[in-house]
Amino acid sequence: MYSRFDVTILGNSSATPTKDRDPSSQYVRLGPHSILLDCGEGTQSRIHEFGLKLQKISVICISHLHGDHFFGLPGLITTMSLYRRIDPLLIIGPEGLRDILMSLIAAGDSELSFNIDFLTTQTNQSEVIFKHQDFQIQTVPLNHRIPCTGFIIKELGPIRRVNVDACQERNIPISFYESLKFGYDYFPNNELRIPNSEVTWPLPEKRFYAYISDTKYDEDIIPLISGADLLYHEATFMSDRQDRATDTFHSTAKQAAIIAKKANVGQLLLGHYSARYSDLTPLLEEAKCEFFDSELSLQGETYSVAKDELKITK
Amino acid sequence: MYSRFDVTILGNSSATPTKDRDPSSQYVRLGPHSILLDCGEGTQSRIHEFGLKLQKISVICISHLHGDHFFGLPGLITTMSLYRRIDPLLIIGPEGLRDILMSLIAAGDSELSFNIDFLTTQTNQSEVIFKHQDFQIQTVPLNHRIPCTGFIIKELGPIRRVNVDACQERNIPISFYESLKFGYDYFPNNELRIPNSEVTWPLPEKRFYAYISDTKYDEDIIPLISGADLLYHEATFMSDRQDRATDTFHSTAKQAAIIAKKANVGQLLLGHYSARYSDLTPLLEEAKCEFFDSELSLQGETYSVAKDELKITK
Repeated sequence: MYSRFDVTILGNSSATPTKDRDPSSQYVRLGPHSILLDCGEGTQSRIHEFGLKLQKISVICISHLHGDHFFGLPGLITTMSLYRRIDPLLIIGPEGLRDILMSLIAAGDSELSFNIDFLTTQTNQSEVIFKHQDFQIQTVPLNHRIPCTGFIIKELGPIRRVNVDACQERNIPISFYESLKFGYDYFPNNELRIPNSEVTWPLPEKRFYAYISDTKYDEDIIPLISGADLLYHEATFMSDRQDRATDTFHSTAKQAAIIAKKANVGQLLLGHYSARYSDLTPLLEEAKCEFFDSELSLQGETYSVAKDELKITK
Repeated sequence: MYSRFDVTILGNSSATPTKDRDPSSQYVRLGPHSILLDCGEGTQSRIHEFGLKLQKISVICISHLHGDHFFGLPGLITTMSLYRRIDPLLIIGPEGLRDILMSLIAAGDSELSFNIDFLTTQTNQSEVIFKHQDFQIQTVPLNHRIPCTGFIIKELGPIRRVNVDACQERNIPISFYESLKFGYDYFPNNELRIPNSEVTWPLPEKRFYAYISDTKYDEDIIPLISGADLLYHEATFMSDRQDRATDTFHSTAKQAAIIAKKANVGQLLLGHYSARYSDLTPLLEEAKCEFFDSELSLQGETYSVAKDELKITK
């Protein structure tokens, strides 16, 4: 009964592209929904290369205004328009993003074929910034050189599956089935209660994915990401460059793993690697010493957001 | 005695990237100089992929403010800075480009490691907008939907090579050698003249490259590009879509070839292909019917700017 919930890495390089890695971007599929997290230069080409659907993206979340996280956005939007997109697009990002995008599009004297709605992120506190019946997006204020938020994508929707035979036996009206799916009991009259568990089956627990783009080591995020089924946490450097990481408001692989351990997440994905690392194995080894369920995010690979017992990666 | 003068195609797609083609950008090498013409998304990655030197670029020319010609510029500049460039960079482009770039860099609260000088192109008349002792860049006003210029890059420098023995026999001072290189005669006194040709050898004729990025068919450019050794002319469509070409201020392969023929250029390179063409051969065939010395520009290939007798392509 699980619907699809996975993350394809479109880019995992910090600051600049390298021979094998592009700047940050991730394509999240949750049931029928496609959500883009960050949009570094080349994102639209990677979407094409990895056989994903550009026009299916309904929401784009931008963590902050460093170029490696949003310089691909103007081109991606322009291409959506050139291919005559009609559906509106929601962009969630920091203050200033809207003006920058609109000025770039205005410079080309172009009109988009679709509407863009903007929601502005705040960095003073976490908030559920967007809610759909199937999922919600929550911000995670991060500790970076400029205003920056991570994002938590959590599936929503029914938590119980209706046992129709049992309902019919008890004369529960079909109009109440929707409430049953969300765990409500049924009251035929003031004295009688039919417990939800008698007429429904449980559905699997809801999963959630936490995307922590750019941040120095910051335990303040732990309560928010605690119990995430999958955590992507930036790991720009290794521990021998911890001073450099702190100076540039970034994390080491070890720090990412400590956060994962303290937040008791299901699995940790490392990423946002400095261009200095061509072989990433040492970063993984460093992380695994702290948190065994660590994995390298690799460009073009897809990672499931799954409960432990269902974990299937790549 | 020829110094290097060639053009590497970093991208030749119109509007959007395709599986095999990126948006417009070209890397021109002229002797020790590297000049970038347009900078679509992904340009910095292509420079890397094709083994070219990012930091050697001293001048970037942007033809117009459609995204497929400049959305790669912010990322390219940021990367130059991250790798601690010191040399100043000259950017030549339309009004508005400077403000857009500066606002993008300001959004990231970043300071560049080097200075950028801007020169603004005009579209009411052609001008030599930049002159170096080794080359000059001249604008070519084009007929596009928004203000747009092409660029002519012409090599400059000595036209004669000094015959030192002949000069010494005639007691010509070394201080006059520089003038000899540029064709001046020497006057030992008011009555005597030593013709330049007696004491120098000829150097090969100067070459020039014309880059016509986006334009509808426009014979007004012919006097400017007449005699170019290599002409790149956009060929977005084939003739069966001539109406579409005209509506969108673009050219067909046939029209590009007619311009090449009328301008009596050495060789024509086609490019800026619509994403609808996966096989480009029909565009070349169409052009060759009008102008035999036509060739397809292919991404990653390098084309010499050469006098006819020296023409070596790819």
